Amino acid sequence: MISFSSKGVSVLEKTKKYTDSQFLISDLLEKIAKKNQGFSSPEVLENSELLTKIDTFVRSHSQKQYLVILGIGGSALGGIALQKILARNTEKNIFFLDTLDPEIIEEVFQKISLFSTLFMVISKSGGTVESLSQYAFFKKKIEDEKREISRHFVFITGEEGFLREEGEKNNISLFDIPENVGGRFSVLTAVGLLPARFMGIDISSLLLGAKKMAENFFCPDKEKNLAFQFATIQYNALQKGITKNVMYAYSNKLFALSDWYRQLLAESTGKKFSQEGEMIFTGITPLSALGVTDHHSQNQLYMEGPFDTLLCFLEVEKFSSKIYVPEDGYTKTPLSFVQGKKFSEILEAEREAAKQSLTLCQRPWISISIPSLQENFLGQMFLFFEASVAFLGEMMNINAFDQPGVEQTKILTKKILQEKKREN
Amino acid sequence: MISFSSKGVSVLEKTKKYTDSQFLISDLLEKIAKKNQGFSSPEVLENSELLTKIDTFVRSHSQKQYLVILGIGGSALGGIALQKILARNTEKNIFFLDTLDPEIIEEVFQKISLFSTLFMVISKSGGTVESLSQYAFFKKKIEDEKREISRHFVFITGEEGFLREEGEKNNISLFDIPENVGGRFSVLTAVGLLPARFMGIDISSLLLGAKKMAENFFCPDKEKNLAFQFATIQYNALQKGITKNVMYAYSNKLFALSDWYRQLLAESTGKKFSQEGEMIFTGITPLSALGVTDHHSQNQLYMEGPFDTLLCFLEVEKFSSKIYVPEDGYTKTPLSFVQGKKFSEILEAEREAAKQSLTLCQRPWISISIPSLQENFLGQMFLFFEASVAFLGEMMNINAFDQPGVEQTKILTKKILQEKKREN
Repeated sequence: MISFSSKGVSVLEKTKKYTDSQFLISDLLEKIAKKNQGFSSPEVLENSELLTKIDTFVRSHSQKQYLVILGIGGSALGGIALQKILARNTEKNIFFLDTLDPEIIEEVFQKISLFSTLFMVISKSGGTVESLSQYAFFKKKIEDEKREISRHFVFITGEEGFLREEGEKNNISLFDIPENVGGRFSVLTAVGLLPARFMGIDISSLLLGAKKMAENFFCPDKEKNLAFQFATIQYNALQKGITKNVMYAYSNKLFALSDWYRQLLAESTGKKFSQEGEMIFTGITPLSALGVTDHHSQNQLYMEGPFDTLLCFLEVEKFSSKIYVPEDGYTKTPLSFVQGKKFSEILEAEREAAKQSLTLCQRPWISISIPSLQENFLGQMFLFFEASVAFLGEMMNINAFDQPGVEQTKILTKKILQEKKREN
Repeated sequence: MISFSSKGVSVLEKTKKYTDSQFLISDLLEKIAKKNQGFSSPEVLENSELLTKIDTFVRSHSQKQYLVILGIGGSALGGIALQKILARNTEKNIFFLDTLDPEIIEEVFQKISLFSTLFMVISKSGGTVESLSQYAFFKKKIEDEKREISRHFVFITGEEGFLREEGEKNNISLFDIPENVGGRFSVLTAVGLLPARFMGIDISSLLLGAKKMAENFFCPDKEKNLAFQFATIQYNALQKGITKNVMYAYSNKLFALSDWYRQLLAESTGKKFSQEGEMIFTGITPLSALGVTDHHSQNQLYMEGPFDTLLCFLEVEKFSSKIYVPEDGYTKTPLSFVQGKKFSEILEAEREAAKQSLTLCQRPWISISIPSLQENFLGQMFLFFEASVAFLGEMMNINAFDQPGVEQTKILTKKILQEKKREN
């Protein structure tokens, strides 16, 4: 089981402990339940039918050497994290095209062999303009080679919309995104599971881990509920003006999780209105840092800058590699105290030293620890963060599940492009 | 020449324009000059002797297929940015090991062929424990194969320290880091130039661009001095409680520059003391975002969250790729307004729409534009950001060139590891 330490928040002297929280877990869960969100439901976490369907589909495409995922935001970030942390199938070349940068799209097009490529288009609304533009681009390439698009595309989408219609019309395999699971909460649906299965990841183990954490999420005991504890610390810190949360991963692979978490925290908490419609302009800004690399980049600011940052250490208990610094007569050199030590020991020493330094500088920190980079533990992690954001939303009295602030840009984009058309 | 637009800061109604700044460029330059920093000096930017030495060295190692850079923080971030943005030599495999993660170190060890590998150890103090630990590790591997370490290592280091002594003792090629150039300002010394030359980058063009921007840096005219203008906006925003600066790159390659800038801004401005020794705990928190990808991740927060963020758009005027969305009868679909458009046009439309949305939401933004991803323009960029941080430091009345807050962690790391030794 992943674990959680909050001793580093003692520097916020007046911050209440999570056991002293004014919130009752049962009240919060009731409010969350009213929003009918599926991310922690048995329909998502115990969906054996979906696992079978994924298995059959992946086997039938096992000869494909390239997988290109056309998705952006919540349709990509979970899969990217899974790829960087867990991918075991090194025979496949997998590209996430979560961009409009033409040079990157063209680069990927040049790297793949069309005949051996499966394109996975992911969009809950079925109308995401970035992913659909790429779909149109690659569809044309497939057609130009007189190939059947149904053999090269699979769509993951919601109940309605252009992508579903297009899929049905062209006999393309379809996977569903449940209506009550938002994009940034969708990593444990087909959105994350289908790419993961192509990567050789054990997706049933991933779901089992998540299911275990879901049980913890519904536990009303403040001493036991990890997501509640984390959310309480974030909320109490925010009340004291701590508007920045750094996800500080001490593992290059686990660092990939912080990009996924950035979307989850930023979109869920950055809100203009309270649930009663009062203007509050609130939000927690997520930052990503990599230990020990950022000891040499961001730590100066974290140690001496404004008192507005909570640091969340993300730790791996066991590294699979045992390499060490050789002993070679370095006694009177800067290597004297590291020779003979494993690299993982030096990394851990630096991490603990960073925590001690933060405490000395009166900076709050917590740590979240994962036993090892295995599927079940990562499943726990995903659900832990999703659950904590759900709690946090209710504590902050905002809707953690919408994103009204991004519509304006979509409307203006359309206007700009339409006007451009008239000019030409 | 790179260019700069500040029309998006008009939403900060009471923010003074840079022409109204209380600071005189000549005063600021005088204060900076007293600190004797070499990053913009002719000794660095017009060092033809160094270019010749680099050229000779790289030619003599042209048969090496692998380059592994052992450096961290300022010894890596500039080179990584250069690699991601400009690298042209695709025959070489180049790895930056700016980490202690044992799995990553082992992964790189398994990918390289020792006989065809050059290791570049970069540390200004010559005592950086992470990089020296890796040096000891790979040195042993080379010795185990009965190879001469002088044929497989090159050191880039300051005047004194372990690395220089070790290099002289073992007949290893040495390149200098000037004493008056700090790590995060060192990309245009051998630290960035030597790896860049291995990547096929035109380093004299890089320096020519930087030299041009250095002239602009020393220009006392507020209407012309770009670095002064940028620093003034950051400073004025900070006075209004805007403590976060997002570097929002609308190019996947250029995004690499924001990691380099994160160190530059965080380490330079995150300071406990003013120049008179008063405790001020100040600093600007740098954030990185990627357009349009982060439209689907961070924008909700930027549009609706707290009014504490300045967005700096980083734009490429010309993309080399001309790919477009095919026209294929998408008239009544979400693709209707993008069909027939180039991907770069859609990207630009989204970028302009994001700016307009920010203005509507009363959020300040600026834009920095680079004509194309070419050496001379990137040289301008590096110098522009370094110069702006130098100005900013004087405006904030802090020393932008030190990093006293990171020492504590180094001391505690040593203590933890020494105690561990006694236990074993």
